[in-house]
Amino acid sequence: MEPKASTSLIVDELDTPFLALDKEKFIANIDRLQKRMDAHHVQLRPHLKTVKSVEAARYLIKNQHLPAAVSTLKEAESFAHAGFMNLLYAVGISPGKLDRIIALRKQGVDVAVLLDSKEQAEHVARACISFNEQIPAYIEIDCDGHRGGLKPDDPNIVVIGEVLSSAGAELRGVLTHAGESYNCFNQQDLIAAAENERRSAVKAAETLKSAGLPCPTVSIGSTPTAHFGVNYEGITEVRAGVYAFFDLVMAGIGVCRIDEIALSVVSTVIGRNKERGWLFIDAGWMALSSDPGSSISTSGYGLVCDMGGSVIDGLFVKALNQEHGILALKPGSMNDLPELPVGTRLRVLPNHACATASQHTCFNVLSASGAEVVDQWQRIQGW
Amino acid sequence: MEPKASTSLIVDELDTPFLALDKEKFIANIDRLQKRMDAHHVQLRPHLKTVKSVEAARYLIKNQHLPAAVSTLKEAESFAHAGFMNLLYAVGISPGKLDRIIALRKQGVDVAVLLDSKEQAEHVARACISFNEQIPAYIEIDCDGHRGGLKPDDPNIVVIGEVLSSAGAELRGVLTHAGESYNCFNQQDLIAAAENERRSAVKAAETLKSAGLPCPTVSIGSTPTAHFGVNYEGITEVRAGVYAFFDLVMAGIGVCRIDEIALSVVSTVIGRNKERGWLFIDAGWMALSSDPGSSISTSGYGLVCDMGGSVIDGLFVKALNQEHGILALKPGSMNDLPELPVGTRLRVLPNHACATASQHTCFNVLSASGAEVVDQWQRIQGW
Repeated sequence: MEPKASTSLIVDELDTPFLALDKEKFIANIDRLQKRMDAHHVQLRPHLKTVKSVEAARYLIKNQHLPAAVSTLKEAESFAHAGFMNLLYAVGISPGKLDRIIALRKQGVDVAVLLDSKEQAEHVARACISFNEQIPAYIEIDCDGHRGGLKPDDPNIVVIGEVLSSAGAELRGVLTHAGESYNCFNQQDLIAAAENERRSAVKAAETLKSAGLPCPTVSIGSTPTAHFGVNYEGITEVRAGVYAFFDLVMAGIGVCRIDEIALSVVSTVIGRNKERGWLFIDAGWMALSSDPGSSISTSGYGLVCDMGGSVIDGLFVKALNQEHGILALKPGSMNDLPELPVGTRLRVLPNHACATASQHTCFNVLSASGAEVVDQWQRIQGW
Repeated sequence: MEPKASTSLIVDELDTPFLALDKEKFIANIDRLQKRMDAHHVQLRPHLKTVKSVEAARYLIKNQHLPAAVSTLKEAESFAHAGFMNLLYAVGISPGKLDRIIALRKQGVDVAVLLDSKEQAEHVARACISFNEQIPAYIEIDCDGHRGGLKPDDPNIVVIGEVLSSAGAELRGVLTHAGESYNCFNQQDLIAAAENERRSAVKAAETLKSAGLPCPTVSIGSTPTAHFGVNYEGITEVRAGVYAFFDLVMAGIGVCRIDEIALSVVSTVIGRNKERGWLFIDAGWMALSSDPGSSISTSGYGLVCDMGGSVIDGLFVKALNQEHGILALKPGSMNDLPELPVGTRLRVLPNHACATASQHTCFNVLSASGAEVVDQWQRIQGW
């Protein structure tokens, strides 16, 4: 299906599977976090890896000079082309990607990079000298052993700061991400994860400052901690991505209710295996992704709603093939497998909105009634 | 990166991550199964859901009248547009999709549908009458409890056949898929799965014929059984898809060697966590997919090769985030974590070629040396 920008389509006339966005929920989710950050007087830097769409991003970022994070240079280039001027490429920089960073900066876009090693700092330093460009860099800090980054008191933080500063790069600050907050399942643990994230970033900033180096930005964030942090002392910005859509992982953690999830995949019943108690839909991993969700999830590969958006109790996506989803009753469910004739349309709520959205080329933005597609927003693809 | 059709690019100049296709292995894999089918005097119907590319499909299907299977109507329309005239939409038909089937047939394309219920047969029958079109249909047979289909002696097979025939639909035949062969891990079990698949299809054909109904086509197939079947008595066609690329699941089953896998994702080292023994690459689930591979896999989310295509012993893709792959040593490996500086390029072999390829918009077809991209083949997207 080719996207059409300005005509209103009837949802029933779109062929399944397709990606549907409930605009009211989307806007409410955005407002919720924005108000929270405003109340804490901290700048929000939305991570656009979730929406990957210029039209969607305009709802998250109201002014082209407000900050955004991206996960690919293709996103950086697409958002820059649309006028977004303050971008952070929030994946560790490699030397082969610096030419595209330089090209964006030469166009006047304030794009910053992320790094956590002297080796990367030396690559950035060389590029600054070669291209006479002051590339801004964030040093990545490890607050919870989730992935990369330096410990907040690692002396390499100062080494990196010195390499960057001596070459005329701009030491923009420190950044951390409480990735392990996805494994928190109660409010107390989430508040503790947020406070640990904050403390780690502030401590790393002090490591730089006590060596006489600048650290204008202290950036933290993940969708769970952004919704549960109580103390933002020393923090200048918070990053979050999936908060605009939410998903079953976020509902499982307790960050949102299931009826706040703004994204779903509309699919059609195509068959039934009575003996095994399975229903088949035309949304497999191609339309839903194979994202397994969280470790405590009992949602399989998604929960199933009717077209009004009400969850069909007890039903879940048990397994996926390329273009087949297998629905079944959850273990222990006392319900009967619903009588859903071939041709019935269902909405599947995603485990992980970033992953499910990435399987589609556009969002079909639904009217409040859910009956019309009021807009189709193209997604940015590739790298 | 925008695909360029006819210029030769230097592989080192392409930004990572990108999808690379080793053309020599691709052609050798295609020839291997084609020769096997020719020796058994059985027609091969390649399943194009794996390649999803017109240029790639021309290597699998040498003549536009030879049969192909597809997994989406978008594939059917794209391949039809490119001249492929004999297509089977091999996912259970739903009533909302019949208008596109009819439209293709009115253009002269022989596109057939698949079904396993009286309910679907009645939808197809109504469409045949409404549009004065003889839609050909296959009845899906369940040979191993994998997903849908009717048991080979289910009386509903005859009911469906009668509904179709009475409405002027064309009862094209029966079809089964030994999906459970993906859980076979020795030659004896694979041969048995292939023979069970054959017997089930032949028995279902007899069920139709003994009721006086036609069954011109008896279709079986999965990549594992297509490579291990020894008896094709009563079979008119074999379907397979992933055989053209192969992947770690197929290597795990024993259908191919690891060095026969034609597809890889080229990525770049972007960091390291010394304490945990992790290397980071710029290929996460966005570039590799989250496909978990087979149940006995010890390959995590992929195996890692140098740019020459040699597997780096002991290393595997342990975990994936959106744009990060985490490499680590396999449990029990006696190797040291290799010294791979930031910027080093690696090739990741996929668990599941269909899933990994689907994350990309095109194939970068490599020269024999692996140093040049001799072609870029666009992939069909959407539904």
